[in-house]
Amino acid sequence: VRAGDVRAVSRAITAIENRDPHAEELLAQLFSLTGRAFLIGVTGGPGSGKSTLVDRLGAKYRVEGRTVGVIAVDPTSPFTGGAILGDRIRMQGHAGDSGMFIRSMATRGALGGLARATADAALVLDAAGKQIVLIETVGVGQDEIDIARLTDCTIVLVVPGMGDDVQSMKAGLMEAADIFVLNKAEREGADQLEQQLHAALEASPRSWQPPVIRTTATTGEGVEALTAAIEKFRARLNTSGEGRARAAAQWQRRLLAMLEEELLESVVTASGGKQALEAIAAEVAQRKRSPYDAVRALMTNNTPAGTERR
Amino acid sequence: VRAGDVRAVSRAITAIENRDPHAEELLAQLFSLTGRAFLIGVTGGPGSGKSTLVDRLGAKYRVEGRTVGVIAVDPTSPFTGGAILGDRIRMQGHAGDSGMFIRSMATRGALGGLARATADAALVLDAAGKQIVLIETVGVGQDEIDIARLTDCTIVLVVPGMGDDVQSMKAGLMEAADIFVLNKAEREGADQLEQQLHAALEASPRSWQPPVIRTTATTGEGVEALTAAIEKFRARLNTSGEGRARAAAQWQRRLLAMLEEELLESVVTASGGKQALEAIAAEVAQRKRSPYDAVRALMTNNTPAGTERR
Repeated sequence: VRAGDVRAVSRAITAIENRDPHAEELLAQLFSLTGRAFLIGVTGGPGSGKSTLVDRLGAKYRVEGRTVGVIAVDPTSPFTGGAILGDRIRMQGHAGDSGMFIRSMATRGALGGLARATADAALVLDAAGKQIVLIETVGVGQDEIDIARLTDCTIVLVVPGMGDDVQSMKAGLMEAADIFVLNKAEREGADQLEQQLHAALEASPRSWQPPVIRTTATTGEGVEALTAAIEKFRARLNTSGEGRARAAAQWQRRLLAMLEEELLESVVTASGGKQALEAIAAEVAQRKRSPYDAVRALMTNNTPAGTERR
Repeated sequence: VRAGDVRAVSRAITAIENRDPHAEELLAQLFSLTGRAFLIGVTGGPGSGKSTLVDRLGAKYRVEGRTVGVIAVDPTSPFTGGAILGDRIRMQGHAGDSGMFIRSMATRGALGGLARATADAALVLDAAGKQIVLIETVGVGQDEIDIARLTDCTIVLVVPGMGDDVQSMKAGLMEAADIFVLNKAEREGADQLEQQLHAALEASPRSWQPPVIRTTATTGEGVEALTAAIEKFRARLNTSGEGRARAAAQWQRRLLAMLEEELLESVVTASGGKQALEAIAAEVAQRKRSPYDAVRALMTNNTPAGTERR
């Protein structure tokens, strides 16, 4: 993985997806090598041209001599076959380029864990020496906002005339955006959408006002302006200290999520496993027991305070 | 609350929204009175006519002599002022009818806790003697699917020509639906959308094949067919034992969520509170410490195994 070997990186990400117990061990070993990549999230609805834009961005960074990793996340698609096929097609444009790595993340129904798996995959690409990691997500749910929040820079794509006007934008996505990209900017309604965006941004001013960059990803128009905007944002993250604060806040959320998972597993195991929990839940459903009482009983199986009380 | 007093019920729900410590005590006291209401979730995108349909359903149940509670959840709207105004306007149609209660749930930014708050509000309405509780949500994110999963019957609204065709339907929502409502059925594209739905349903057969009911909520057309479909589904839940299994599965998820919250709070407190956690997160962000090591250290502050190890 450290040497950037494509097959090793691929296997590591598969292990993460499959929640292979060795994955954590691997991540622990690689962790000290991470923290160097710049993570860029690209979020937009189906048909907004995300993949095309990500490919353009990736190609641009490659021309500049930077190594690039791409993680494509689509929680709306429960199947991975198509995604894997898509990866192959996308990789063909970069055949023989070891500086470019493209990978789709499978969901395998584990929607809740997708943000964590994506973050871990990004760590692998970081350790493998990728300088830029592009994370591509469909911006339709809370999960995508969670993924957007784990990047250094979040780009939100909007497209004229797709019903995704500013008002119907998923709550939280507007706030998560560092840069807006108005893609398919040649379409009718682009000016109106740009005005709407600016109006919404002015209504809630922030220390960094996200720019709105107009692109036509299919032709590559505007991609240069976009990379310039990303660089400007990155420079600001570094000089203002906001980059450091952002990383610390992200790690706090990740530590809490990891802790939550471990704690829950440990309590459920100590309480007699899943079967015991099912029996308790059935009792609560039949109103034989209150949920508050049930939670208290489960807690005493695992906290020091509870241990004393026993 | 037990007597169904509007102001008492209202205050109880406000306490739940505000995470008032007394709310849990109240819920614990009311819990044994719950489990009698039938919870119906109505989920659909903005502009799909959810509120109108819910009002029609509520009015229909009132005519039948059943008491009705309505909880309207809109996580896309961060403001509650409008929602409260909306409640007043909606209640005007039921002025003086103590058998009808309508309430919007405020999000207050606590998006993650919205499903729990909604479930708790439904318990209050259940204890207050409401026989039917309608829960209205915008079906755009994971949170709404979580809410849909806490009801006895989930109705998913689709509307022709709004871009919300079957393919772009949020993953998980299709699976969560017990009944589909094709609202604004007089519009162009209704037949095509119905065909798409049937095709998608046939592609993944289940023990209960969700019917597709065509309605025009504004005129009330189809509402009778909808209540009949709901009754049929309810009867099946009871006779097949699936209702019991569903309730047990729901309580298992809720117990886990409650447990998670309590455990996390207890560990964070035992580890020195939020400030200590922030310091650890900053160390991880600066790669001075691995996240796996940090989580292990936090865990030892709270598990019996960890206590022994110290």
